[in-house]
Amino acid sequence: MKDLDTICSVSTPQGVGALAVLRVSGKDSFEITSKLFKDLKSLKDFKVQPSHFVKRFDIYENEALIDQAMVVKFAAPKTYTGEDVVEITCHGSHYIQQKIIALLLQNGARLAKAGEFSMRAFLNGKLDLPQAEAVVDLIDSQSEVAHKLAINQLKGSFSNRIIALRNQFVQLTALMELELDFSEEDLVIADRAQLQKLLLTLKNEVTHLTESFKLGNVLKNGIPVAIIGKPNVGKSTLLNCLLNDDRAIVSNIPGTTRDTVEDNFTINGINFRFIDTAGIRLAEDEIETFGIERTFKAIDKADIILYMIDISETSLEDVEKELLFLENEIDFIHKKLILVANKIDHLNELPKHFTEWDDYDIAFISAKRNVNIDEIRELLTRHIDQYNITDTTLLTNARHYDIMLRIEENINEIETGFLQKLSTDLIVIHINSILNLLGEITGEITTDEILDTIFSRFCIGK
Amino acid sequence: MKDLDTICSVSTPQGVGALAVLRVSGKDSFEITSKLFKDLKSLKDFKVQPSHFVKRFDIYENEALIDQAMVVKFAAPKTYTGEDVVEITCHGSHYIQQKIIALLLQNGARLAKAGEFSMRAFLNGKLDLPQAEAVVDLIDSQSEVAHKLAINQLKGSFSNRIIALRNQFVQLTALMELELDFSEEDLVIADRAQLQKLLLTLKNEVTHLTESFKLGNVLKNGIPVAIIGKPNVGKSTLLNCLLNDDRAIVSNIPGTTRDTVEDNFTINGINFRFIDTAGIRLAEDEIETFGIERTFKAIDKADIILYMIDISETSLEDVEKELLFLENEIDFIHKKLILVANKIDHLNELPKHFTEWDDYDIAFISAKRNVNIDEIRELLTRHIDQYNITDTTLLTNARHYDIMLRIEENINEIETGFLQKLSTDLIVIHINSILNLLGEITGEITTDEILDTIFSRFCIGK
Repeated sequence: MKDLDTICSVSTPQGVGALAVLRVSGKDSFEITSKLFKDLKSLKDFKVQPSHFVKRFDIYENEALIDQAMVVKFAAPKTYTGEDVVEITCHGSHYIQQKIIALLLQNGARLAKAGEFSMRAFLNGKLDLPQAEAVVDLIDSQSEVAHKLAINQLKGSFSNRIIALRNQFVQLTALMELELDFSEEDLVIADRAQLQKLLLTLKNEVTHLTESFKLGNVLKNGIPVAIIGKPNVGKSTLLNCLLNDDRAIVSNIPGTTRDTVEDNFTINGINFRFIDTAGIRLAEDEIETFGIERTFKAIDKADIILYMIDISETSLEDVEKELLFLENEIDFIHKKLILVANKIDHLNELPKHFTEWDDYDIAFISAKRNVNIDEIRELLTRHIDQYNITDTTLLTNARHYDIMLRIEENINEIETGFLQKLSTDLIVIHINSILNLLGEITGEITTDEILDTIFSRFCIGK
Repeated sequence: MKDLDTICSVSTPQGVGALAVLRVSGKDSFEITSKLFKDLKSLKDFKVQPSHFVKRFDIYENEALIDQAMVVKFAAPKTYTGEDVVEITCHGSHYIQQKIIALLLQNGARLAKAGEFSMRAFLNGKLDLPQAEAVVDLIDSQSEVAHKLAINQLKGSFSNRIIALRNQFVQLTALMELELDFSEEDLVIADRAQLQKLLLTLKNEVTHLTESFKLGNVLKNGIPVAIIGKPNVGKSTLLNCLLNDDRAIVSNIPGTTRDTVEDNFTINGINFRFIDTAGIRLAEDEIETFGIERTFKAIDKADIILYMIDISETSLEDVEKELLFLENEIDFIHKKLILVANKIDHLNELPKHFTEWDDYDIAFISAKRNVNIDEIRELLTRHIDQYNITDTTLLTNARHYDIMLRIEENINEIETGFLQKLSTDLIVIHINSILNLLGEITGEITTDEILDTIFSRFCIGK
């Protein structure tokens, strides 16, 4: 354990509330905190059983009572940071929070930088880097799936997979070095076939990971959905249906409000995010018939496209013509298009050529009368179900993705090396690069600069 | 202790942070909270030593890990509410906070109403009403003085004074009842003189309290200050000097931001609040020479008036003429006026007729060059120093003030009764009213309606 100075900060959200929690961590945590209490010589003297001590104390500045606070003592090393930690739960007024922080500073603590508690947890070996990064994701998570991805990563499942991958590359190096030792013409060729096979397995695994990033990233940040269609087709009404229902559910649990982006909603724990929605809302008042430019932009950013028509006024031929036009202009390969046939309340029965049509998924709805909206929800989530979202090794972090891409490049170099029958030592350079890159993910190999970049993304107090 | 149902809520400020604290209170607190943990049959089984138990637990919904949280068990009756209490410190994401609350609700808790924890503390005799009301003030307090008033009230100093007052009125009743028992003409007259003397003492004390309300209230909410003066005299510049310096101090303690009204600042722990500031800022661009209407309004709301002049362009005669005009229009009796002579940097020396002038306090400053601003601060606080702000029995609460005014009315009735030589039983009615009113302050006499009104002012989670 490194012997660092003592840091402190408010760890609960900013603002006024019934309670606030302040954290102190470092070698002098107990001594510094003890100075705030009149009736206590030192927290150090208190027996900790099993690793913590909790008591209510009066906090004084000179003779003035500042607050009556609950104090929990956590003795190193079984603490979040691995250092001696004190948590002070005080009344949640600005004045009291500021005052206690000021008292801690006066007594020798300094203000923690963003993420500094977690950085110490990393430096003291309590968390590896992906676990520390998962703490940020956990705090930011707004949907069940995002939460699940974060908590799996926090539990170490992602790190374990990286470590396993690293071990396989170490094995590859061992085999290569064996080759170095006994290098005879025949032997080399025989071994290389085996090495190439192992490399292919590893390449598949790395490719699986890099390919999972798109899904992992959208699951974490919300799946981008575009609603497109002619003016007055009912786009805003549908959007409101989807958003309002979700808000109603959320507002059943008061005491916690959402301050998230307006146009997010959750279905079965998955977060969907409407893109370019301001444009969509404006569209109702616009004269142009389709709004090609904006539509292209929305489709480009979207994973799922809700293509909306007024079924009471649109023929299947019109739809097919428009879709053909769109397909010529835009690459649909990785996108899902759902045809939303709105205004079924204007019809006596559904047109047969539409119900029998199976080029795309189609939902027959009335946004105005809130009919069959669940069908859209069903189709939206079905798109996700094709992936294994419980796969604990989804890549969700841009830093990991970036490193994985560099690992892929090195694998390609090794493959080329095998093809070109390059000498073993030239190939081993790339394997070593890969080992270093995997070490960068877990944090075994790192620099202060990398750490500062990672931990500055944290909030203060974590 | 009443056996109420079990309530829960998030007690830290809304929003996302490193940590959040959830509170559970009621007879089933331990049972309900235990259901969130896989590896624990019941918190009830844990020995509590001395009155609390703390441990980190994994919180599960079915098989899904929700969070790793710190749980503190507080066994009744030595808790905030007087009931069994559990505090859960979890990661501060929206999702986790909502999820844990949802789990608690599913297991039989219900959401706490605003102030319900404190209401239970009151109902279980842990706090009297002024102490519970002090909790709100403590959380809202933004300055040292407001904090001090609240914490003194929380410690019971105000309640003690009310109880002492009540005892004296009980004594008065006793003396009156003695009179009832032995009512003979001479005895009555002799006793009444003594009674009247006692009544006068009590009246003085009550009047002292009601008169302290104005100060108590402004100390709690900020002392209203108006800056008046002609356009381009430097009002905005002065305002910025006073506000920015304060902000600079505050921003030295990061991790806690102020989301208070913009135009507040603190000197020596006392909060000052600029009124009508939007108007003042506009004034710089206005053509009118004085803005009488707006000035009258600002003066009317203010306790302190900073009357600002450009001393390089203003004669003492002008000032005296304007002040005479203002004094004729507005009642200055309870207000303090400070003459701010700005732009001294335009002069070689201060004009003698101003330096020798002693009708009002005067500060010679240059707002633009930040010269002598401390003199204004000095004069602002001197106005407050004339009161004893450490007087722990300042009335700060509008409810208490309202009741005190009704007590004053009853005292006046008793005085009239003595003067008109009314019979003892007619006078005793008013003393009983006073005893009831004092009981309303401390909460000995109360109704559900009164309690609901008081506690609905609290934030959720307190």
